[in-house]
Amino acid sequence: MWRVMETPLNCAEEQQPPPAFPASWSTVTPQESPADRNDKGNAVGFVLVHAGAGYHSESKAKEYKHVCKRACQRAVDRLKAGALAVDAVTAALVELEVSVCVTAALVELEVSVCVTAALVELEVSVCVTAALVELEDSPFTNAGMGSNLNLSGEIECDASIMDGKSLRYGAVGAVSGINNPVLVANRLLSEAQKGKLSAGRIPPCFLVGRGAHDWAVNHGIPPCPSEKMATKFSLSAYKRNKHKMELAEKVDTGFNHHSKKRRQASETENGSGLLDTVGAIVVDREGNVAAAVSSGGLAMKHPGRVGQAAHHGCGCWAENTSTLNPYSTAVSTSGCGEHLIRTMLARECSSAMQCEDAHQALLEAMQNKFISSPFLASEDCVLGGVIVLRCCRCSDAQPSPDIQAILVEFLWSHTTESMCVGYMSAQDGKAKTHISRLPPGAVAGQSLAIEGGVCRLVNTPTTVD
Amino acid sequence: MWRVMETPLNCAEEQQPPPAFPASWSTVTPQESPADRNDKGNAVGFVLVHAGAGYHSESKAKEYKHVCKRACQRAVDRLKAGALAVDAVTAALVELEVSVCVTAALVELEVSVCVTAALVELEVSVCVTAALVELEDSPFTNAGMGSNLNLSGEIECDASIMDGKSLRYGAVGAVSGINNPVLVANRLLSEAQKGKLSAGRIPPCFLVGRGAHDWAVNHGIPPCPSEKMATKFSLSAYKRNKHKMELAEKVDTGFNHHSKKRRQASETENGSGLLDTVGAIVVDREGNVAAAVSSGGLAMKHPGRVGQAAHHGCGCWAENTSTLNPYSTAVSTSGCGEHLIRTMLARECSSAMQCEDAHQALLEAMQNKFISSPFLASEDCVLGGVIVLRCCRCSDAQPSPDIQAILVEFLWSHTTESMCVGYMSAQDGKAKTHISRLPPGAVAGQSLAIEGGVCRLVNTPTTVD
Repeated sequence: MWRVMETPLNCAEEQQPPPAFPASWSTVTPQESPADRNDKGNAVGFVLVHAGAGYHSESKAKEYKHVCKRACQRAVDRLKAGALAVDAVTAALVELEVSVCVTAALVELEVSVCVTAALVELEVSVCVTAALVELEDSPFTNAGMGSNLNLSGEIECDASIMDGKSLRYGAVGAVSGINNPVLVANRLLSEAQKGKLSAGRIPPCFLVGRGAHDWAVNHGIPPCPSEKMATKFSLSAYKRNKHKMELAEKVDTGFNHHSKKRRQASETENGSGLLDTVGAIVVDREGNVAAAVSSGGLAMKHPGRVGQAAHHGCGCWAENTSTLNPYSTAVSTSGCGEHLIRTMLARECSSAMQCEDAHQALLEAMQNKFISSPFLASEDCVLGGVIVLRCCRCSDAQPSPDIQAILVEFLWSHTTESMCVGYMSAQDGKAKTHISRLPPGAVAGQSLAIEGGVCRLVNTPTTVD
Repeated sequence: MWRVMETPLNCAEEQQPPPAFPASWSTVTPQESPADRNDKGNAVGFVLVHAGAGYHSESKAKEYKHVCKRACQRAVDRLKAGALAVDAVTAALVELEVSVCVTAALVELEVSVCVTAALVELEVSVCVTAALVELEDSPFTNAGMGSNLNLSGEIECDASIMDGKSLRYGAVGAVSGINNPVLVANRLLSEAQKGKLSAGRIPPCFLVGRGAHDWAVNHGIPPCPSEKMATKFSLSAYKRNKHKMELAEKVDTGFNHHSKKRRQASETENGSGLLDTVGAIVVDREGNVAAAVSSGGLAMKHPGRVGQAAHHGCGCWAENTSTLNPYSTAVSTSGCGEHLIRTMLARECSSAMQCEDAHQALLEAMQNKFISSPFLASEDCVLGGVIVLRCCRCSDAQPSPDIQAILVEFLWSHTTESMCVGYMSAQDGKAKTHISRLPPGAVAGQSLAIEGGVCRLVNTPTTVD
């Protein structure tokens, strides 16, 4: 019923040298340039991002990869500045969310400054607003700016973040007029850590709609006018989809005794290209993990629809190692929100990754907990993708007793036609990106692809607190 | 650090005879009256409801119990009419949600008619609107009408439902102007079962805010003017809470160097009495299970805050028996939404109930997955409660080879000061109700109470399809 493509790490862009990681899942330190070595010991960490599981056309491959590369770089910049995983993952997400607006170098610089400011003080109103004025309308990802429009022609975004250290979660759902929903999710998480509100009230971890928007603005996150959130691309897609719907409904009314059949027949019309949620997972030099996800949701969704990106255990998961868990794990998902909610795929993959063989564990999780999940028994086409990392301190693999090393195993798997990923360690000069595709002839929604790699992060004892 | 009260079933209201179930968790058929026997074979099923884990004053005990009793009766009426578990659980929830409005016999009759109509056709606009005009302002539960007001003085409700047979879930979050949010959740569930929408769009399982309201109204669920949702009681509680908050914030501003300390000190002020979400779990004569939950959320919550009642795996869970699961299980939770979301308590309890000893399994789940959960490591007061049932067909315990029996084990457990429950089998003449309390001296949020019973449902072969 399904086929597996098991390609050992095959990550590099065409112009890059062959990947440093071996075909087998063994422990190796990535190749380093002399420049990288200067950073070693001062900053260690690893980031893996995705620009969605869906369909990524060859013609736009370069742009998707570029977005992922920048997101990785942004997270690594934070890691090098000593940030913890939860901040680095937010930085990567912000980059993915604002991908539409960072084509001009100047704008990118402004956004970068703002992101740094946001993560330190979260008082970003002045500089982010300035950056947003410069927005351009060339969207690649379905998150934040340039997101899919809903039935009413509005953009409503979902995002969530989880911190593997505190195990806290923050999320926003169906929020309009905020171009970086992940900043709101992150702020909900950090505000909750401050303890109770006045009169003993418990701080919220999940806000939706207008309330989420107002809370964000009250906490210094600038609003973005709705008309600036949509782009030429998203507006023309909306018009096309609206026309397609009207046509389909006309046919339906004309032949309503065949409506059930029609519903099934037209399911490919939606195009899996519209599922490209973005996400990021990070491990920092202390071995803390964090995960985040952000999405504009399905095109032509009903207003108020919340997908997996805001749903605890479904959009992302991060859990530091503990007495019960030998590995720290982080997961971020993409795909059909309803399928990912019903299967709680992020949490399921995280649990699965506690098994010995990471590759086999993810393969079985995608097969048994997703494609063949009893929770999706009625679905003949199960669309989704995950990025996963797990890590542990490996005392037996240390270069010397004085040097600590973290072994990071990272993977991605998807049942959609393609998935765009990027990854980078703080020791690397630049990010590697890759568009993973199902093998020719494989049926999306029934087959899966799985790939990944291994990276060893080395930290000298002087840098450990 | 915590104490356990293990009281074997102690369920009856004062005027009722001692419970039919023994102190040990053995298999017994409940005592029946001759009248009950007429129903036996035609309708079999069991319902367990809760009117919240929080604080239930002695002075209002009778009212809380009366609400639970009516809710049980409503579900059993549906079961006797041949309804499946998912419909029966909806009927019970509607009863709990509208408890405020059914004090007059006439209104109750109207609501009952409407509920039946709603479950058959979901075209309830005419009769429910008529019933709602008659609403009275004597609220006992924090769900639907008479819910807690949020910071802006508005009512925003969460509700969800899960069907153990299809494993589907439907939910609404932060929805205003709908006095039976569980009807919307149920309708989302049933609409999703019809397959894709026009142009291949995937139907939503979770809607929030204005979008949820509009979807409900478009699907024949009548809106309820906001001013009719609030009651004298909820409005006066809002004014009291507002005053308390302003006072606390004044103190905070005056001594803001002590704000952290103040936050902790005032945490008991919120009053656990405001957590009284409602829920119901049902098993029908075919052994299908369903679970539902509905809540007005925390008093003075931020607008747009969504609690566990809308969150998959957190507010309710239902899973029919399968090759992997020897038991069918259903769970509904109540308490502090943020604690229940972070621990995913409903799903955790459901998983735990696959162990051999139901009582021990729930005890350990409440201890290890809630009170001592690593997800709540920073919390010193963990507030919540669950109702749980599990059932299986017991061929070895059949009265004769021709008669099928379903063994139902049902339990409740809470860390709050009290929890109000009611339960009834379709073979019983009337529901039993009980307010479970922590033993004197036990600390709410650190201790737990656990109770339950066993019931065997007998079905003659002629009634099995």
